[in-house]
Amino acid sequence: MAGYHVPPLEVLVEKFESLPGIGHKSAQRLAYHVLGMTRSEAESFSKAIIEAHEKIHYCNVCCNLTDGDLCPVCRSAVRDTSTICVVEEPKDVFALERAGEYTGQYHVLHGAISPLSGIGPDQLKIKELLCRVNDNVKEIIMATNPTVEGEATAMYLSRLLKPLGVKVTRLAYGIPVGGDLEYADEVTLQRAMEGRQEL
Amino acid sequence: MAGYHVPPLEVLVEKFESLPGIGHKSAQRLAYHVLGMTRSEAESFSKAIIEAHEKIHYCNVCCNLTDGDLCPVCRSAVRDTSTICVVEEPKDVFALERAGEYTGQYHVLHGAISPLSGIGPDQLKIKELLCRVNDNVKEIIMATNPTVEGEATAMYLSRLLKPLGVKVTRLAYGIPVGGDLEYADEVTLQRAMEGRQEL
Repeated sequence: MAGYHVPPLEVLVEKFESLPGIGHKSAQRLAYHVLGMTRSEAESFSKAIIEAHEKIHYCNVCCNLTDGDLCPVCRSAVRDTSTICVVEEPKDVFALERAGEYTGQYHVLHGAISPLSGIGPDQLKIKELLCRVNDNVKEIIMATNPTVEGEATAMYLSRLLKPLGVKVTRLAYGIPVGGDLEYADEVTLQRAMEGRQEL
Repeated sequence: MAGYHVPPLEVLVEKFESLPGIGHKSAQRLAYHVLGMTRSEAESFSKAIIEAHEKIHYCNVCCNLTDGDLCPVCRSAVRDTSTICVVEEPKDVFALERAGEYTGQYHVLHGAISPLSGIGPDQLKIKELLCRVNDNVKEIIMATNPTVEGEATAMYLSRLLKPLGVKVTRLAYGIPVGGDLEYADEVTLQRAMEGRQEL
């Protein structure tokens, strides 16, 4: 940007550019948008970043994000405590809660085993999961992503959990509802065929 | 998000969602990214928003964004003061400066005339432009966007400026360098043909 420097603007553009999925052009557009905000809007945006960072931490039980000691699910008296659904990320809990089908507990691993990225079992919240397995827990549902890493993590966990006498299940694979058979990939179709159910 | 609420996170997601071009999913992803930052990263992001907002204002002369009284271009002793390039937005100045061809002054209108959006000449920095026209100014280059609004603004300004005895020009239209003739639209091709130059 030869000849034209406005340092506070450049800093803000850089900050936006450091966010995932935001390129230089988008970062510029976002920065200009922030400049066009009222002072109080800018202040509340700035405050939201700090507040989220200060107040949100992991739930003591399931490692999901929360602003209390326990997350809303672990705190709830009406949720079934005999099943634990294991997911990779907090956003997966949000997705499952949005679906509204599941009424049990969750456990957030904060990642998946990925030797290529240097993520081993020790970096995930696996110890915390094993601590939760007691006589009350009847089933642990693997809801890691349907990727190589997610699969590997589910297999790894099931080998650890089965000797503890707990039932380990996996979310069903198949064609997505509302999808088009024509566009489904071969592996998905194979799995959908394998998992076919009687009508 | 039935059953799962983390208010500070929801506030942050809302803030990101209010930015242009950011949908709910992206906003969530950005909010999670912020949670994953170190404390000092989050603080410096938060501070960048406030600082940009506090320190950046319009240049007293050209209405571009700056953190001083004058912007770097108006402050510079080496820039040609006999030409003024009129653009719609500060980002257009950045784009032209990046090209590095132009060595004159700028004037930022902060928009274009658009009756449909209720933007008339009074909302733009047109008075400020007229005040700048003096015997020293030989040429005013219209570099508004090649849209209906940008064209209308350029025409409107040229009618105001020509009686003041100043030469008014327009950026050349034509096929973009590195583009493919096949994909150029008809109007662009017409303009490119009209504006053809001898080799």
